[in-house]
Amino acid sequence: MTQPAGQMPDWIAVDWGTSNLRATAMTAAGPGETRSSEKGMGSLAQSEFEPTLIALVEDWLPTSGAIPVFACGMVGSRQGWAEAKYRAVPCTPLDAQALTLVRTADPRITLRIAPGLSQTNPPDVMRGEETQIAGALALNPNFDGVFCLPGTHSKWVHVSAGEVVSFQTFMTGELFALLSKTSVLRHGMTGKGWDQAAFDMAVTDALSRPEKIAARLFSLRAEGLLTGLSPDAARARLSGLLIGTELAAAKPYWLGQDVILIGSEALSAAYATALSAQGLTPRQLPAPACTLAGLSSLKGSLCPVH
Amino acid sequence: MTQPAGQMPDWIAVDWGTSNLRATAMTAAGPGETRSSEKGMGSLAQSEFEPTLIALVEDWLPTSGAIPVFACGMVGSRQGWAEAKYRAVPCTPLDAQALTLVRTADPRITLRIAPGLSQTNPPDVMRGEETQIAGALALNPNFDGVFCLPGTHSKWVHVSAGEVVSFQTFMTGELFALLSKTSVLRHGMTGKGWDQAAFDMAVTDALSRPEKIAARLFSLRAEGLLTGLSPDAARARLSGLLIGTELAAAKPYWLGQDVILIGSEALSAAYATALSAQGLTPRQLPAPACTLAGLSSLKGSLCPVH
Repeated sequence: MTQPAGQMPDWIAVDWGTSNLRATAMTAAGPGETRSSEKGMGSLAQSEFEPTLIALVEDWLPTSGAIPVFACGMVGSRQGWAEAKYRAVPCTPLDAQALTLVRTADPRITLRIAPGLSQTNPPDVMRGEETQIAGALALNPNFDGVFCLPGTHSKWVHVSAGEVVSFQTFMTGELFALLSKTSVLRHGMTGKGWDQAAFDMAVTDALSRPEKIAARLFSLRAEGLLTGLSPDAARARLSGLLIGTELAAAKPYWLGQDVILIGSEALSAAYATALSAQGLTPRQLPAPACTLAGLSSLKGSLCPVH
Repeated sequence: MTQPAGQMPDWIAVDWGTSNLRATAMTAAGPGETRSSEKGMGSLAQSEFEPTLIALVEDWLPTSGAIPVFACGMVGSRQGWAEAKYRAVPCTPLDAQALTLVRTADPRITLRIAPGLSQTNPPDVMRGEETQIAGALALNPNFDGVFCLPGTHSKWVHVSAGEVVSFQTFMTGELFALLSKTSVLRHGMTGKGWDQAAFDMAVTDALSRPEKIAARLFSLRAEGLLTGLSPDAARARLSGLLIGTELAAAKPYWLGQDVILIGSEALSAAYATALSAQGLTPRQLPAPACTLAGLSSLKGSLCPVH
């Protein structure tokens, strides 16, 4: 679809993760059309990034000059388009002066990639989430507290005075996917249903006795064989056990804190339910809006006048 | 290879798991040749079991009459050749009177399959391990204590007065395989090396703070990126974290107990090292010998004179 000249974007926001690419046409009025593709970093060779992006946004490109493109996520990893080296915490989530300017073959774009964050002790890294955090801070100025970004690799992030103080990653989402789709437990988890009571009970169980997680998993299989545990209850219980174990280990992050969840609606709701049972009242923000707000803050400080 | 008539086996012992099939020619003098195949239960339709076994042992079959075949493992599951229903603990690991006699198309074999064991609370099941336990008891009469059978699904089994009193399954081996071969951690675990010090430290760490397991896993990836953690150290540390977490949850089984490990040499040695650090002096028995001893005890009580 070719856009009329009057609607050409001012700049392009790109969220390029391991398995997905999303590009949004940004105008002075805010975000316009978003296009996505499954050509994530994980499926591309280094030389394929530029043609992949150009093909997706070709009709947004100017006939003269170059349009600014701000990108975040795994596109900036060592296996990505160009490495944007980690910034070490404590630091602000984003810094317009620390962007990696990438030389492109196509003169119609000026590409800058946001670096991720690293932590020395305990060792940890993030890429992409720093932009969501910057966006959430832009949407909630002066927020001091904790962000939880549930997902494949959930992050808990302590933010104070505009800086990321510390963070911790949990492989909860990836463990759930592996166990529910690939392990022996998959036999009892066909379908997509959900048993909220089973989830709630499993969270409570794992939170109060997290050291028992290793003993809980195979029980799901055994109950399926012996008592016909329903697939909905089995899936919800596995999710609850894993999230409860994460919450137990992340307790120093959330105990007594103001928590904002950034993620997909369904997953954030599951975490919100679990945290509410612990007496918290977490807010929820949608991840795509945070990413765009974060990239917009970069654009704003680097090119205040377009 | 056709055997001369003088060396024809008295009976055939079959260990048929999810991914492997092993058949051993048994004579009055003990085990003879063992043949194996990768045609495990998981890859066979119900109608394929008999032809698969016959093809493997054809030249061991008599020209007249039928040879007894005693089998254990997943071959007796609902998805196997014929279901041998679980026996509920507390009970002896094997009972010759509870074998499932399977009608075969080929008249040259008389097939009996050993049932597994089930436990109601907490729900648990085993198939194949009960035969190893019976064999270990045959090799160590009057043993009272705990068997640990490390593997894909590790089992801890409390045995007293010849009966299985209780048991618990841990998915440690399957988790290690999934995490080291399929998850994001695989990037830092190429090769097959081993760092014993990293393993020992991780076991101690997980045993003393098992509730932190969820927080420890992603660190392996982050350290690989940030400080170049070696693949050998990463693999050994992942193994140590998972085994240490299992040992923490299985503590009620092994604390102050006489423990016998039944498994492969390398894996049993890893568990023995970890348990020794806790002040235990576990013995080790090879799994195949225990299986044969278990099936032999069935053969002995059912057909005392051949």
